[in-house]
Amino acid sequence: MAALIKNEVFSCFVFYGVLLVIKMYIIAIITGQVRLRKKAFANPEDALRHGGLQFHREDSYVERCRRAHINDIENILPFLFLGAIYSMTGPSLAVARLHFLVFFVARVLHSVAYLCALRAPTRSLAYTVAQIPCISMALQILTSVAAYA
Amino acid sequence: MAALIKNEVFSCFVFYGVLLVIKMYIIAIITGQVRLRKKAFANPEDALRHGGLQFHREDSYVERCRRAHINDIENILPFLFLGAIYSMTGPSLAVARLHFLVFFVARVLHSVAYLCALRAPTRSLAYTVAQIPCISMALQILTSVAAYA
Amino acid sequence: MAALIKNEVFSCFVFYGVLLVIKMYIIAIITGQVRLRKKAFANPEDALRHGGLQFHREDSYVERCRRAHINDIENILPFLFLGAIYSMTGPSLAVARLHFLVFFVARVLHSVAYLCALRAPTRSLAYTVAQIPCISMALQILTSVAAYA
Repeated sequence: MAALIKNEVFSCFVFYGVLLVIKMYIIAIITGQVRLRKKAFANPEDALRHGGLQFHREDSYVERCRRAHINDIENILPFLFLGAIYSMTGPSLAVARLHFLVFFVARVLHSVAYLCALRAPTRSLAYTVAQIPCISMALQILTSVAAYA
Repeated sequence: MAALIKNEVFSCFVFYGVLLVIKMYIIAIITGQVRLRKKAFANPEDALRHGGLQFHREDSYVERCRRAHINDIENILPFLFLGAIYSMTGPSLAVARLHFLVFFVARVLHSVAYLCALRAPTRSLAYTVAQIPCISMALQILTSVAAYA
Repeated sequence: MAALIKNEVFSCFVFYGVLLVIKMYIIAIITGQVRLRKKAFANPEDALRHGGLQFHREDSYVERCRRAHINDIENILPFLFLGAIYSMTGPSLAVARLHFLVFFVARVLHSVAYLCALRAPTRSLAYTVAQIPCISMALQILTSVAAYA
């Protein structure tokens, strides 16, 4: 059981994977803080508690935070699957760490570009760079298991 | 292979994890039933089948179900990752079960609070309580693998 | 470590799981292409780069792509969890492959039905068929680990 967690490549993956989960939690916390500060609540019961039903409304920055979060869901969660399986295919630690690190840095940049509304195409570029290790891992996994399809 | 599933902590995690996946499926089923009952469809082809294009429209309770579902995605799916890895770090069964059980109960309460529009801050409280075992697991995992970063 | 990836059932699951992740990436790419072609951007900074703020707007086909993507998130990501755990419960390869293949084919059909707006209830039928192996796996997993709850 503990064999998996003692494997160097798997542990390296877990390290960056957990940091990215924490990064997603931080976006959720930011969204909540922006809702409170801008008084823009998705649910009438929340608005009622914070001043009245007029605050049951949308806000463009809250929506931006939501899009950043959903984009993380669409990309970081599949990475958690691909990275775990890829770690089991026996890659070298150096090559594997490069995959994880590129994804990690690009996704952090993606969040910063989204929340700070950096000039295009910063965000799209970060998104594309992050996809490269994912596609690479997906293809290497398929090569490893294709015989069992 | 079967070693993982025979590990007590991992099996305990799997038990609550699968129940939470089923809970998410139930929200999807409720959303579908509400769409049919309120005649509020997201797609024109569905509206056409159920009475006409005038039913291609939004409904506030359908949107509430959608938000409950998306919130589950944002929180239960990362838990499935954290809980699996945390189970491999060798925690005691009693402490691990407490983590899983707190998360499970809080997320069920979160869904009930969302779908029944319970008075604030019931839902936010359930959300916050559910995050505590997640943060705890994330930090314990990072401690276990930090040497491999 | 490599034991998992050398297990036939697990490898079969991984094969279809990775293909489904790639399918999700393709929907993301299609969404981006439709945004460019229809000039409908979710962020003002993207609109500014592609002609002006008047293109910071919604488009009904972009929204359709988004719904297809979110529906994948809600269904394929839980499958990645259920399938991995189910593979560890010792099912026969033939039965397991049938579970994975039915899910895979039904989810590909779901995407085609969504993006091509096929007549109802094609898409709902594909969704329902895909849920059958998921419910089957969930129940078999619960049976395997119920003693550890």
